[in-house]
Amino acid sequence: MSNKCGELFVVTGPSGVGKATVLGRLMKNIDNVYVSISATTRKPREGEIHGKHYFFMERGEFEKLIKDDRFLEYAEYVGNYYGTPAASVEEMLNQGKDVILEIEAQGALKVKEKCPDCNMLFIIPPSFSDLEFRLRSRGTETDEVINKRLEKAKNEYTFIDKYDYIVVNDDIDKAADEIRCIIMASRFKTEKRKNLMR
Amino acid sequence: MSNKCGELFVVTGPSGVGKATVLGRLMKNIDNVYVSISATTRKPREGEIHGKHYFFMERGEFEKLIKDDRFLEYAEYVGNYYGTPAASVEEMLNQGKDVILEIEAQGALKVKEKCPDCNMLFIIPPSFSDLEFRLRSRGTETDEVINKRLEKAKNEYTFIDKYDYIVVNDDIDKAADEIRCIIMASRFKTEKRKNLMR
Repeated sequence: MSNKCGELFVVTGPSGVGKATVLGRLMKNIDNVYVSISATTRKPREGEIHGKHYFFMERGEFEKLIKDDRFLEYAEYVGNYYGTPAASVEEMLNQGKDVILEIEAQGALKVKEKCPDCNMLFIIPPSFSDLEFRLRSRGTETDEVINKRLEKAKNEYTFIDKYDYIVVNDDIDKAADEIRCIIMASRFKTEKRKNLMR
Repeated sequence: MSNKCGELFVVTGPSGVGKATVLGRLMKNIDNVYVSISATTRKPREGEIHGKHYFFMERGEFEKLIKDDRFLEYAEYVGNYYGTPAASVEEMLNQGKDVILEIEAQGALKVKEKCPDCNMLFIIPPSFSDLEFRLRSRGTETDEVINKRLEKAKNEYTFIDKYDYIVVNDDIDKAADEIRCIIMASRFKTEKRKNLMR
């Protein structure tokens, strides 16, 4: 790996564990990191900005990119595509930036297949019952949806050996610091710093 | 590796780079770390406490331990033995503590041979001329001794590929945080944290 090349960090975890909140906190305390923006065919919601929240695109355009193998991973949910465009990730890595993909677990495992050197991080809640409590106290979803999410989380836990690191989100600052340490430590690896020996 | 087992971190770097100062700062910001205490046959200097600064021992006792293969590494300087007793290190690791060995580079390479899984950290100054400046501005050593130290440092640099991480001591707080990140990241590895998935 060249000195100039950043590393890829795939961050996932069960729905409701607080991935976006933790990453938001992290970004205040680290530099030279790019959080990848997903592409989607769903319509923008109010306030959502193209190129900031998502790359919004037409179905035909998305399918063309699938055909040309231009996604690190993609999936279809409720009639809409969501995917991680390879081009922007590669560009940032080549600029020497570390790149974070915040994606759901199935996508994470696909990225691992395409990029075996990536760092796989799985965020867990302090306990499974805590996750259930978080989901239920949102009060925005039916019991059926919540139970589905919990089933999905249980299934995701069975793939834990595919991950390099487990981050515990008990406290947002602590969880953000855990991810910061993982990213920073990767920057201190000998092959990346030999150029500093002068 | 069991969940209860700590990891071994070997910290070295050229004479004058500030190893002890950086580790002193680190110890204020991390818990569950034991800094190994060396054994030596040299006489205690004023203020030095047995079991804190060194384990002071008689030559015969030291040689008996060598014969019984009870050192992770040892060497003789100016007529005195210095060594890292394996027993205390193993005990701390088994208690789940991470252990730091602050030793000189030759000893570090010997430890790496005995414990291939250890994490090897090499502290460098911001530049080689900075190291020379630090050594000369101490004003306590002859030019001959300083030149010998610089020669030794240059030689140590050639073994850099034996190390996993390079820590830059430009600023003590920053260098201590770098080591903290390396140690913390190792604690978040999946095999060590699976027991938290409940």
